[in-house]
Amino acid sequence: MGIVVQKYGGSSLADADAIKRVARRIVEVKKSGHDVVVAVSAMGDTTDDLVDLATGVSPLPPAREMDMLLTAGERISMALVAMAISDLGFTARSFTGSQAGVITDSVHGKAKIIDVTPGRITQAIGEGHIVIVAGFQGVSADTKEITTLGRGGTDTTAVALAAALEADVCEIYTDVDGVFTADPRIVPSARKLDHVSYEEMLELAACGAKILHLRCVEYGRRYGIPIHVRSSFSQLEGTRVVNTPARPDQSSAPSEEVTMEQPIIAGVAHDRSEAKITVVGVPDKVGEAARIFEALADAQINLDMIVQNISAAATSLTDISFTLPRTDGQTAMTALARIQAEVGYDKLLYDDKIGKVSLIGAGMRSHPGITSKFFGALASAGVNIGMISTSEIRISVIVDENAVDDAVRATHTAFDLDADEVEAVVYGGTGR
Amino acid sequence: MGIVVQKYGGSSLADADAIKRVARRIVEVKKSGHDVVVAVSAMGDTTDDLVDLATGVSPLPPAREMDMLLTAGERISMALVAMAISDLGFTARSFTGSQAGVITDSVHGKAKIIDVTPGRITQAIGEGHIVIVAGFQGVSADTKEITTLGRGGTDTTAVALAAALEADVCEIYTDVDGVFTADPRIVPSARKLDHVSYEEMLELAACGAKILHLRCVEYGRRYGIPIHVRSSFSQLEGTRVVNTPARPDQSSAPSEEVTMEQPIIAGVAHDRSEAKITVVGVPDKVGEAARIFEALADAQINLDMIVQNISAAATSLTDISFTLPRTDGQTAMTALARIQAEVGYDKLLYDDKIGKVSLIGAGMRSHPGITSKFFGALASAGVNIGMISTSEIRISVIVDENAVDDAVRATHTAFDLDADEVEAVVYGGTGR
Repeated sequence: MGIVVQKYGGSSLADADAIKRVARRIVEVKKSGHDVVVAVSAMGDTTDDLVDLATGVSPLPPAREMDMLLTAGERISMALVAMAISDLGFTARSFTGSQAGVITDSVHGKAKIIDVTPGRITQAIGEGHIVIVAGFQGVSADTKEITTLGRGGTDTTAVALAAALEADVCEIYTDVDGVFTADPRIVPSARKLDHVSYEEMLELAACGAKILHLRCVEYGRRYGIPIHVRSSFSQLEGTRVVNTPARPDQSSAPSEEVTMEQPIIAGVAHDRSEAKITVVGVPDKVGEAARIFEALADAQINLDMIVQNISAAATSLTDISFTLPRTDGQTAMTALARIQAEVGYDKLLYDDKIGKVSLIGAGMRSHPGITSKFFGALASAGVNIGMISTSEIRISVIVDENAVDDAVRATHTAFDLDADEVEAVVYGGTGR
Repeated sequence: MGIVVQKYGGSSLADADAIKRVARRIVEVKKSGHDVVVAVSAMGDTTDDLVDLATGVSPLPPAREMDMLLTAGERISMALVAMAISDLGFTARSFTGSQAGVITDSVHGKAKIIDVTPGRITQAIGEGHIVIVAGFQGVSADTKEITTLGRGGTDTTAVALAAALEADVCEIYTDVDGVFTADPRIVPSARKLDHVSYEEMLELAACGAKILHLRCVEYGRRYGIPIHVRSSFSQLEGTRVVNTPARPDQSSAPSEEVTMEQPIIAGVAHDRSEAKITVVGVPDKVGEAARIFEALADAQINLDMIVQNISAAATSLTDISFTLPRTDGQTAMTALARIQAEVGYDKLLYDDKIGKVSLIGAGMRSHPGITSKFFGALASAGVNIGMISTSEIRISVIVDENAVDDAVRATHTAFDLDADEVEAVVYGGTGR
């Protein structure tokens, strides 16, 4: 009877009734003989409301104070969950990120966890309490300041606690039944995956599936924490993120951790949050491309796909295209404009009417022909491919924004991912 | 140029505009060359909203979690005040009670401050920052749990900080202009006091004036902190609480700290929050009264006035009456009913249609005839006196609830407290 770590997002804690339902679920696990540690997000729209309050007093609030403000959200929800548990006759102790020993670096607004020292948690567990921890927050190692972990932070808190406590499992409760082969709003016949590997989940998260945050999956993989993504609104089994599931062409015997679905492909992800910038007419000399990417790095911009065309022999000029988050578009264009004279490029093109469609599966590693089947499906659906990027277990293409749905559906069908029956689910992102 | 400590209550921080106004006021003091440390309450109705949330999930929430919940209120307001200050081009650092070094005992919901270790505050001051501290909250010395100080807590936080930082003054900002000779809603001609002594202020607070909390005044007296009660909605001088002001019949030379008003009487306070219990027919033997008050003490009930009649010689029975907060009425009646057989009293009477009117002034110590003038004024106004209690600088009477206003007005006039002109103010309580 080990420790179970659970995470509940804002949509699972929207109001008093939701909080009571979560408390009953927590108590059930405690009754079954496990110790329970729960990471919670802020209730429903609390974070948005707090951000509105901040912008009401200052257009550009200091990051330190923004963290101080936002961390009030989990403080409220964790105390309420503890109260609801107490009302069921069990005892609970809530702890802030700082009290729970979530130690971070000191980058306000997007701090990274560098250690977890869960002394107060283990003491409370030892005393028989259920432990509720504020997600999304920590305290900086050097300055002892309150920090927040940024988007998906509570998922990361949960997995980090599971690692520090050597928990049996980290259950991520959300408002959908698990991880699907595609967004069911686009592909009604999408199937829920029973198992998915860490690396597949990483690629899915990186390619636009909002169900689990990248950092949470990375943390889980590094420490080997089984993650179970499931709905707080049902008792159904969700999706278990585990070590690389055995493939049909591998000889290992199936175990409980091994998926029996034998998928070559885990799913089709899509992302409409990126934009594409093309730097036209870059002199094809050593160091020019480096100068461009240095300028973008200095502006703290994370690039995704990068393509450089072969230079036209007559001119010795080349074009460099890359994709980046739309929210960084303006910053990137400004940074590049500043170095135009120095680099001597011709002009900049900006396109945010694009979408990315990604095919992901650990099985594609050993299966030739995946790429041609993928591109064939897109061609049959009349979808034009803009840029291409691949990894060992992923192929991504940039297409026209309006072609994303067609591309996802055609790919999903081409790889036999469609379920026999359509499941009625709503696919949505988790809060923080 | 020393340190100025300020306190702003919830009504001064009701919304974004109010917070910006408070920030401007804080910055003015900083500009004048002082270091500024500010204790803030939760915004407007935040605390009530949080209490509603709690009762929504549990009818009897654990005190520890209630403290965890309520402390989110000041966390929000302090971050917003710091942001608003930053928007004015100054830097501010907000600190929770725990970060600010407000060390308390471990009684959740009504913790007492036992020490203040303001290391982070003095460091922030040294770095040139304005410091904003969450009022009403602290951290327990032994268990390191988050605690709240109970009613009036932020006033107490402010004075405790002023003492620890050896501040020049502790300014308590509220929604009225200061301390008045009576509640202006009852006595429109009530005057604002320019000065009042700690002991007078203590009696006023204990007798129903809600402008400053008792514990705050006690703290101020013990450490000799000048307290300035004033309005956050005007630039007027308020009321300064100082050491005993010189009286006209004393020979000390007037100084800045000495009031020139020469009042024998500081004011008339009233309180409608008490009830009266009479234990009828108590056997007049040694130990019977002690047993009654022991039972009440065991039930954690604070008594105010106590009267025991002379026993009727024929029966050797006596009646014992006392007043207590109405909110404790039910508990007290239950505790007394439980010992009826043991004590052998006849019956219990409960009356919550009473009010207390108190005449307060350090000058009455050396002035005979105050009592007779007070009682004469009440008699002329047709007010019947129920119970009487006195201290060195106070006379209190219990009257019929409906006679309170008449009693206050008659007393105010009899002691020449009426102002020539009526000031337009609203007299209200401070939040917490």
